[in-house]
Amino acid sequence: MSTHTDQPSVTVLGLGPMGRALAGAFLDAGVRTTVWNRTPGRDAELTARGAASAASPEEAVAAAPLTVVCVVNYDASDAVLRQEAVAAALKGRTVVNLSADTPGRARDTAEWAGRHGVRYLDGAIMTPTPAIGTDDAVLLLSGPEELYREHRPVLAALGGSHTHLGEEIGRAAAYDIALLDVFWTAMAGYTHALAVARAEGVTATELAPFAQGIAAILPPLFTEFAADTDAGTYSGELNPITSAASTMAHVVHASEAHGIDASVMRVIEGQARRVIALGHGTDGFTRVAEVLARR
Amino acid sequence: MSTHTDQPSVTVLGLGPMGRALAGAFLDAGVRTTVWNRTPGRDAELTARGAASAASPEEAVAAAPLTVVCVVNYDASDAVLRQEAVAAALKGRTVVNLSADTPGRARDTAEWAGRHGVRYLDGAIMTPTPAIGTDDAVLLLSGPEELYREHRPVLAALGGSHTHLGEEIGRAAAYDIALLDVFWTAMAGYTHALAVARAEGVTATELAPFAQGIAAILPPLFTEFAADTDAGTYSGELNPITSAASTMAHVVHASEAHGIDASVMRVIEGQARRVIALGHGTDGFTRVAEVLARR
Ligand SMILES: NC(=O)c1ccc[n+]([C@@H]2O[C@H](COP(=O)([O-])OP(=O)(O)OC[C@H]3O[C@@H](n4cnc5c(N)ncnc54)[C@H](OP(=O)(O)O)[C@@H]3O)[C@@H](O)[C@H]2O)c1
Ligand SMILES: NC(=O)c1ccc[n+]([C@@H]2O[C@H](COP(=O)([O-])OP(=O)(O)OC[C@H]3O[C@@H](n4cnc5c(N)ncnc54)[C@H](OP(=O)(O)O)[C@@H]3O)[C@@H](O)[C@H]2O)c1
Repeated sequence: MSTHTDQPSVTVLGLGPMGRALAGAFLDAGVRTTVWNRTPGRDAELTARGAASAASPEEAVAAAPLTVVCVVNYDASDAVLRQEAVAAALKGRTVVNLSADTPGRARDTAEWAGRHGVRYLDGAIMTPTPAIGTDDAVLLLSGPEELYREHRPVLAALGGSHTHLGEEIGRAAAYDIALLDVFWTAMAGYTHALAVARAEGVTATELAPFAQGIAAILPPLFTEFAADTDAGTYSGELNPITSAASTMAHVVHASEAHGIDASVMRVIEGQARRVIALGHGTDGFTRVAEVLARR
Repeated sequence: MSTHTDQPSVTVLGLGPMGRALAGAFLDAGVRTTVWNRTPGRDAELTARGAASAASPEEAVAAAPLTVVCVVNYDASDAVLRQEAVAAALKGRTVVNLSADTPGRARDTAEWAGRHGVRYLDGAIMTPTPAIGTDDAVLLLSGPEELYREHRPVLAALGGSHTHLGEEIGRAAAYDIALLDVFWTAMAGYTHALAVARAEGVTATELAPFAQGIAAILPPLFTEFAADTDAGTYSGELNPITSAASTMAHVVHASEAHGIDASVMRVIEGQARRVIALGHGTDGFTRVAEVLARR
């Protein structure tokens, strides 16, 4: 492989399911790709497709002007990046950290990068691995606009829509946290529903199409609730929180009658009951957003 | 209004937001509609559109061969139906109970109906009020097939898709419980996310389009998780539960750092940690369904 070429190049650190998907998408787009993973042996499929395998993270980051990090969290990305040899090799180069963590950790990493002359963008991936490289991929980025512009052509290989949320480095993580909150809470509800359905003799496959119907009614409600929340109206005209709390209680009773843990719904029902007790029984469920943050 | 006519007729008991939507859809479809509500004065708009207002539930149910009940729960529907005069007036007629409650309460009501010569179908509405009378409405029914067939033409006025889930009277409530579980848990996740986003300086309106993106990735994941759950495979190949637990911890930390209650995500993370501790860390999140029902 020639080392002098106009072909764009990238390094991917971290070869979990998502790191492998990212590296695969870069290869598909003809980007020269160098990979490294803490535990060796995760790159066989990628090297077979033309990726270069680096023996160390410092060797990996030296191979390209842009390094994409995608490991479990920032404890892990710190363990990889914050080594003397790696920091030295990264000097003047760019890191895009696509690992998930809090806005505070993103700010802390940007501060470290600044001290070491490393150019830094923070990001988050909002779609599952099969979406990477397709139109469905959703990537959020924050940090210096200019740096984002410079690397956008290579990052475009990851597919889908890329949104630059602004210069404040913690912004991508702030959105990520909020969206993971929606995602995992919804998944927890579905997983719990599958357990309850099974106890009632309904298979997951029987329930799934109706659960998809529920997913289909969420987007317009999300928009409606957003307007309601920003305006502080919390309207319960179409569905008062007293009615919601009653159906939550049914979920708790039916679950527990089958010996199924209903802690999540118990907490949610408790939040609704608290809103009602505070005198907002005719409001809608979103009034809970106020109570959660009450001081 | 003539009392002898071939025009189909129906009675609606309960004029909350949903009862009013149901009565409105019957009127739109040209069904002669009689309404009653515990608290008077909720029927002004409906009577202006041609509904007959009954002075008592017994008078209401006597006005049509089919009565649709839609009140907050079965404590409420019992309070309305289980009165001597109402039971007497219902003899030989049909009740469709579209109030939400548990499968046990549906069975108990069917048993009461049987003892009083009342023909009984149980049902659940899986869509918000604006969907009623449109293609988007989703109605689940269970009980005698023949009875369902007999009343389907009138119930068709409610619009959308009607699924008869079988003769077992508790089936509609079983689906309802599971689907309300998905719905309210997802809504709780979104409401919590709005509180966290606000603390990070992100408005609900800014977050909403991305939250809709999350809603859009749920349907295929629901199908995948369903197959996985029925097969007992719980694959974590694309997203191991260790990775999920890590992102859940970020939500908890970021929320609590802002003084926002994170009890729901704490419970969910705890369930994931339990799965990991039981030796299933490379499995996917749906493995939680097993642990919830563990004896
Ligand atoms: N999978 C998805 O659907 C998805 C979707 C959106 C976002 N994400 C995010 O993408 C990131 C990567 O996720 P993933 O799915 O690839 O799996 P993951 O399990 O979150 O991460 C696995 C990767 O992290 C590395 N790692 C963990 N601890 C480390 C340490 N102390 N030092 C160095 N490396 C360490 C692993 O290396 P070893 O192989 O050596 O353990 C492996 O490369 C996560 O932040 C995740 O939230 C994933
Ligand atoms: N709204 C929705 O988006 C939606 C969607 C799907 C399913 N549902 C289900 O539809 C049913 C009705 O919901 P809703 O939205 O109309 O509002 P709701 O607040 O659940 O129910 C209000 C109705 O219940 C009546 N009620 C309450 N306690 C009563 C009692 N002890 N005796 C007699 N009547 C009593 C009320 O009468 P008063 O006016 O006298 O208080 C009113 O007619 C519920 O089971 C709900 O879960 C609603």
